[in-house]
Amino acid sequence: MYVFRVHNAETGPSRVAGLSDAVFAVAITLLVLDLRLPDLGSQQTEARLQAALLAAVPSIVSFVLSFVVIALYWVSHHRLFQVIRRYDRRLLLLNFAFLLTVCFIPFPTGVIGHYGQLRTAAIVYAGSLALTGLSLAVLWWYAAVQPAPRRGPEWRAARHFMSRALVTSAVFIASIPVILISPALGEACWSVALIAYFVLARGLDRQADLRERS
Amino acid sequence: MYVFRVHNAETGPSRVAGLSDAVFAVAITLLVLDLRLPDLGSQQTEARLQAALLAAVPSIVSFVLSFVVIALYWVSHHRLFQVIRRYDRRLLLLNFAFLLTVCFIPFPTGVIGHYGQLRTAAIVYAGSLALTGLSLAVLWWYAAVQPAPRRGPEWRAARHFMSRALVTSAVFIASIPVILISPALGEACWSVALIAYFVLARGLDRQADLRERS
Amino acid sequence: MYVFRVHNAETGPSRVAGLSDAVFAVAITLLVLDLRLPDLGSQQTEARLQAALLAAVPSIVSFVLSFVVIALYWVSHHRLFQVIRRYDRRLLLLNFAFLLTVCFIPFPTGVIGHYGQLRTAAIVYAGSLALTGLSLAVLWWYAAVQPAPRRGPEWRAARHFMSRALVTSAVFIASIPVILISPALGEACWSVALIAYFVLARGLDRQADLRERS
Amino acid sequence: MYVFRVHNAETGPSRVAGLSDAVFAVAITLLVLDLRLPDLGSQQTEARLQAALLAAVPSIVSFVLSFVVIALYWVSHHRLFQVIRRYDRRLLLLNFAFLLTVCFIPFPTGVIGHYGQLRTAAIVYAGSLALTGLSLAVLWWYAAVQPAPRRGPEWRAARHFMSRALVTSAVFIASIPVILISPALGEACWSVALIAYFVLARGLDRQADLRERS
Repeated sequence: MYVFRVHNAETGPSRVAGLSDAVFAVAITLLVLDLRLPDLGSQQTEARLQAALLAAVPSIVSFVLSFVVIALYWVSHHRLFQVIRRYDRRLLLLNFAFLLTVCFIPFPTGVIGHYGQLRTAAIVYAGSLALTGLSLAVLWWYAAVQPAPRRGPEWRAARHFMSRALVTSAVFIASIPVILISPALGEACWSVALIAYFVLARGLDRQADLRERS
Repeated sequence: MYVFRVHNAETGPSRVAGLSDAVFAVAITLLVLDLRLPDLGSQQTEARLQAALLAAVPSIVSFVLSFVVIALYWVSHHRLFQVIRRYDRRLLLLNFAFLLTVCFIPFPTGVIGHYGQLRTAAIVYAGSLALTGLSLAVLWWYAAVQPAPRRGPEWRAARHFMSRALVTSAVFIASIPVILISPALGEACWSVALIAYFVLARGLDRQADLRERS
Repeated sequence: MYVFRVHNAETGPSRVAGLSDAVFAVAITLLVLDLRLPDLGSQQTEARLQAALLAAVPSIVSFVLSFVVIALYWVSHHRLFQVIRRYDRRLLLLNFAFLLTVCFIPFPTGVIGHYGQLRTAAIVYAGSLALTGLSLAVLWWYAAVQPAPRRGPEWRAARHFMSRALVTSAVFIASIPVILISPALGEACWSVALIAYFVLARGLDRQADLRERS
Repeated sequence: MYVFRVHNAETGPSRVAGLSDAVFAVAITLLVLDLRLPDLGSQQTEARLQAALLAAVPSIVSFVLSFVVIALYWVSHHRLFQVIRRYDRRLLLLNFAFLLTVCFIPFPTGVIGHYGQLRTAAIVYAGSLALTGLSLAVLWWYAAVQPAPRRGPEWRAARHFMSRALVTSAVFIASIPVILISPALGEACWSVALIAYFVLARGLDRQADLRERS
């Protein structure tokens, strides 16, 4: 924007990528803070500790789920910054909007860890993670899809990643009617979707890879 | 200061920028820790969870507000380290003074999130964020305005960013008399100021851009 | 995977190493959050504070123990990324699986800090840290042992580090029967093993070093 | 230690410096977590919030004090990694021992913030920060003083920084007898010492600078 002489090699995209990584790292690690056991008070027996650990299992499951989803979003964000084509003021804003949704994740994770049997908790969680996926898709569109030559290989690859972020979002939104029937069923949907993701993504990557080469 | 032979490429400004980014990243992510729901105890019903979530809305609003303000300060700090002209012991101290005010932000954010209807809370918040803006303006002055050739393009650009930090500060200070009439009105002022910022900053950037080119 | 033009120098392994370091740094520092004293209420006397500090000693011991183990794992991970031979999608997944176990460590550390006299707590801790060691060994195997020319010097060196991670894991698993007899004895085992590690590792390194040179 | 082919530019000292910076950044920012206000319950009046904020002042003072001391230690550590002369397994261990004491600081900061009027709290704080200074001095000795050519300019400069770390340590140890008379007097000593440090350090630097040039 300004014609400053830049004295410092670590400029622009790489420092933003660094800040984003740090935010990801802190957000992913703060998830563990929700896993505290209740104070057992004076009756510290094996049985009571085992009961407290068992009661913490849903929190641990939601910790792992949020960890995996944040990791997937990080991988996508990591790729984006390798191929970024447009870096300006608006990209910074969109990136901060995305990071805001990432920073927020420990909150719905805590809610679903404690009250996972309630519909409200599952909907808050699904809504929050859908928002993260959506803002990641917008980021891909703005920084890599839109500025690339239309229908060229970079454009197609960037669209592939944008679609993936949208699909993650869509899965969380699609789970909301299921949650209204049964929160446990909705939560099962997410796990099924994650496993499907790992299986399908491999296939899609291979296809895309082949298409690139031909 | 010393004529050491430097063995390591990652020296001076870029490592300080790295440390500052890490502090920003942690401070911005710690904001979420204030968003815990109260323990619902044994009566875990949809209605009670919804009430607890509704009660958390002011905390979420102050989380978003602090996130946006920290992000704006980061963008300014990020630019400063791209154009830094003076890097010495005193800059390190001024930078740490600035980081101290950044690290502190989760505290007033928690206060206003819980007691936002009280004047005291709103004043503590406004005062704390005004201090952050002020120390950022001092940093710009020391590292980029004062050492630049007077009235040259770099000097004018650096002054532009210093003024912006001062304006943010001034908005928070100016909101204090409004808070004394009504805390809600004062808090509304900040949102209006933020929106005005995004609209005006674009215009100012364009003007400054034109002036640079001519 | 895609033939993108890469605009950014900070690519691939070094950004993953950076993210991993940030996760390590946060996880290792969050351990301290479990060291809060109970509220002494209105009776704030020297004797009561001293009693509370004495009661915190087991938590401090488990803080130091987890710190040392995480530091050892970091050193190994740090070496791995200096010599990494295979960097692909699967490596990213294995690295995230490893980071998941690292992020989790503050939880069992808190459990053993508060309930260290119970067998359940010691087993949870041993199991969790064994899992971390195991996933680090898998990471070494995949990224450095398997892709290296068989029986060459790099292969032997990578196997040496993989074995060390496995040994750490084995020590924690082997301590479980000891814990069943007495948790205190099991915890003593870990300290003995750590000291043995520092003594033996030096010897092994020197041997390996000599073998390299000959 | 091993004759690996190194594939990655970001090796050795700079990645250790990065990890250390991240630990510093997290530790310095976690200090704020101790500044939570007590729950005011249902009686949320201006007077009660002001009383709660006043009661938090000692915690804020200890937050600022710890922030300043950690910042000073960071500046010293930052310089050390610019001039590091020996980088081996033992340096890694000494650096982790130093980081352990840095990570620990939020704990004594919390103790003195809540129970600053008790001798025990002040002694725990002084002892903890003395230990940090001591381990930093050892780090300087091992990595920069001992391996430098004796009595050369680098040796003298490194000794200067080692001495400073020792002096910080000595001030905290020397304050312990004062604390035994009055904790408030001991805490005043630290502030006086800090101000003296900023005044004297400038003088010493100028002297050392002159000596270098002559």
